[in-house]
Amino acid sequence: MQKSEIEKLVLSETKDQKSKVGVTAARGFGAAGVACGLKQTGALDLALVVSDSACAGAGMFTTNRVKAAPVLYDQATLARNQNALRAVVANSGCANACTGADGMADARAMANATAHALDCRADQVLVLSTGVIGQRLDLARVRTGITQAAQSLSAGGGADAARAIMTTDTRPKVYALRSTHYAIGGMAKGAGMIHPNMATLLSVITTDAKIAPALLDRALRAAVGVSFNRISVDGDMSTNDTVLVLANGASGYGIGELELGAFTDMLTQVAINLAKQLARDGEGATKFVEIAVTGARDEADAARVAKSVANSPLVKTALYGGDANWGRVVCAAGYSGVAVEPAKMALWFGDVNVFANGAPTSFDEADSTRAISGKDVFIRLDLGLGHARATVWTCDLSHDYVTINGKYRT
Amino acid sequence: MQKSEIEKLVLSETKDQKSKVGVTAARGFGAAGVACGLKQTGALDLALVVSDSACAGAGMFTTNRVKAAPVLYDQATLARNQNALRAVVANSGCANACTGADGMADARAMANATAHALDCRADQVLVLSTGVIGQRLDLARVRTGITQAAQSLSAGGGADAARAIMTTDTRPKVYALRSTHYAIGGMAKGAGMIHPNMATLLSVITTDAKIAPALLDRALRAAVGVSFNRISVDGDMSTNDTVLVLANGASGYGIGELELGAFTDMLTQVAINLAKQLARDGEGATKFVEIAVTGARDEADAARVAKSVANSPLVKTALYGGDANWGRVVCAAGYSGVAVEPAKMALWFGDVNVFANGAPTSFDEADSTRAISGKDVFIRLDLGLGHARATVWTCDLSHDYVTINGKYRT
Repeated sequence: MQKSEIEKLVLSETKDQKSKVGVTAARGFGAAGVACGLKQTGALDLALVVSDSACAGAGMFTTNRVKAAPVLYDQATLARNQNALRAVVANSGCANACTGADGMADARAMANATAHALDCRADQVLVLSTGVIGQRLDLARVRTGITQAAQSLSAGGGADAARAIMTTDTRPKVYALRSTHYAIGGMAKGAGMIHPNMATLLSVITTDAKIAPALLDRALRAAVGVSFNRISVDGDMSTNDTVLVLANGASGYGIGELELGAFTDMLTQVAINLAKQLARDGEGATKFVEIAVTGARDEADAARVAKSVANSPLVKTALYGGDANWGRVVCAAGYSGVAVEPAKMALWFGDVNVFANGAPTSFDEADSTRAISGKDVFIRLDLGLGHARATVWTCDLSHDYVTINGKYRT
Repeated sequence: MQKSEIEKLVLSETKDQKSKVGVTAARGFGAAGVACGLKQTGALDLALVVSDSACAGAGMFTTNRVKAAPVLYDQATLARNQNALRAVVANSGCANACTGADGMADARAMANATAHALDCRADQVLVLSTGVIGQRLDLARVRTGITQAAQSLSAGGGADAARAIMTTDTRPKVYALRSTHYAIGGMAKGAGMIHPNMATLLSVITTDAKIAPALLDRALRAAVGVSFNRISVDGDMSTNDTVLVLANGASGYGIGELELGAFTDMLTQVAINLAKQLARDGEGATKFVEIAVTGARDEADAARVAKSVANSPLVKTALYGGDANWGRVVCAAGYSGVAVEPAKMALWFGDVNVFANGAPTSFDEADSTRAISGKDVFIRLDLGLGHARATVWTCDLSHDYVTINGKYRT
């Protein structure tokens, strides 16, 4: 499949609330988002994504040693059943993490209630939770929400579902691409604790392509590696991060080894778009920041340096303050753990080369300041050591980040 | 030496501006701090510490691959001469980092000017710089400052020297201990970018004990390992971090293998006190936070978990906001890279046990909130895996941190 064959679907739900966005862009998927009282504000807090037919499924999960109950539950479920999944149920307002055996029972109860409402088996349902750590789920409310959501499933429900998984996100994240043969679409939530290695990030992606679980798994791993694992808001990593993908085959178009490259490309484009939306909507973010590291010995080195820069509070506060303090970028590269050589580095803010051959260039301070003064900031650091590259997306660190996270639970 | 033999010297310079504090607590050391115009505010910005006689010297330096010129200069100097050092010259206002070959020449010129003023050899002088990265030193001002400082050296100059190395520090850090036989005293500056692995931290420690460079080096490494390497403000690591120690032997008391343990203990106490002052004065800090990790398999694991918690922006903003959000502590332990087991963990805020056996205890929220509401916060996390422990010191992450670092250069 050529990239020109891919046609972007309508992304803006404000233009068309009921357009087939996100998880309902692919054929044969319905979704809903309802308010069941988990969020004190009365906002949507329970999402359901359902396929009309059995799906192949794959998932990637947090590497945190402290895994929330739904993460453990989904890992066990996918280990038993990757072939006949039907639904994902997700709640915001409560992470069901650090809740011990009770929390595991709650995650199971959430799957059971969904299976009951949809008339399928419990092992066909995956579970997601996000919100405050260490509090029990209010199962009565969750059950009411599941019943409601099951009754309001629709092919236009992708937008509401995306709203229902939001926590401190200021806007829902949906994106979809369609090729001649099939569509891939998804939703995500993030905002805080987004990190390389997928911290506090939930994403559900659906497709009507027909693909075996093993190939779907390979495609997902490749896509996540250069999308959700390449964003950072504050370097923290959550207990709940999960990316799920369901493929129901409703398009009738089969993905074999031959078609896998194109499918993976398209999945990667969807995942990168969602990941960039997450970085752009990082907690308190006023700027979206793209950090491209080039000239690395290998891609892993490039990504490591880029993440070190992206996670530096000093770099992020300087960008927030409109201070083109390029030394902090060089410094963060220096402590990345990669054997960089300052004398070989070159650094650009936008198109302004500020550092080369181990020393500042004779750039005009006004130019470098202008280069970081917009909403979108592009930083490129060439290591001068090889030909590999990696790009990481992040946001700045603002007063609002501190405000939001100083009072999250209250 | 028993600890009871150690007598604390007067620490508060406000009580006695000219008391023998910090680097001038030990016999035979003079110091001065002057203003030579490197800081636009006119504050003290050049410090000189001089011994009447030749000193053994040892140093520990940043592990950042991007090393400032004075770091490279001192490493080369100590490699040639660890036996007959005389002085340390330090400036604030300019880090002389990322300045290439010109910066190396500037560091050398700074040592030469000091040697000229003191009538000693250049390889008897160590150099420190701190401040903005990527700008050249104003050598004319530095030379004027060195001349002035050399003329105003005194045994009461420790307080001014400590002021002259401050950047965003809100107060100077000095501390000294005296035993029956000798004294150890020092000064430090930190504030931003303080991190495990000694980031943006300068410290000069002096003693009138008589000790060979090899033993001094061992004592310094042991002391720094549990002091300056156990603090964190924002997880960044600077290009300039340096801890230097000079021993002039003026007490006549010799430290051999037998006396090394007691000497190392005393040096460690001085270093820990200075390190805790740095954490307490972290940029924008409103709270001092001690994180003790117990029950680890080994000390390295304990320190790794404690640092992961100490570096978490989510933990630090919660403490700032007075939110006893203990789940974030458990979460940060989970992604520390250590194989922790949530079901074996127990967590205390002050004396309130909030988490045990993988689930929250039935503590009263008012108690946990009270436990973190003071200026000093104590967090203990028991991993339940062994008997090793480590303590790390940090501060909270406040709005002022963002303000300070958004506008540092302007």
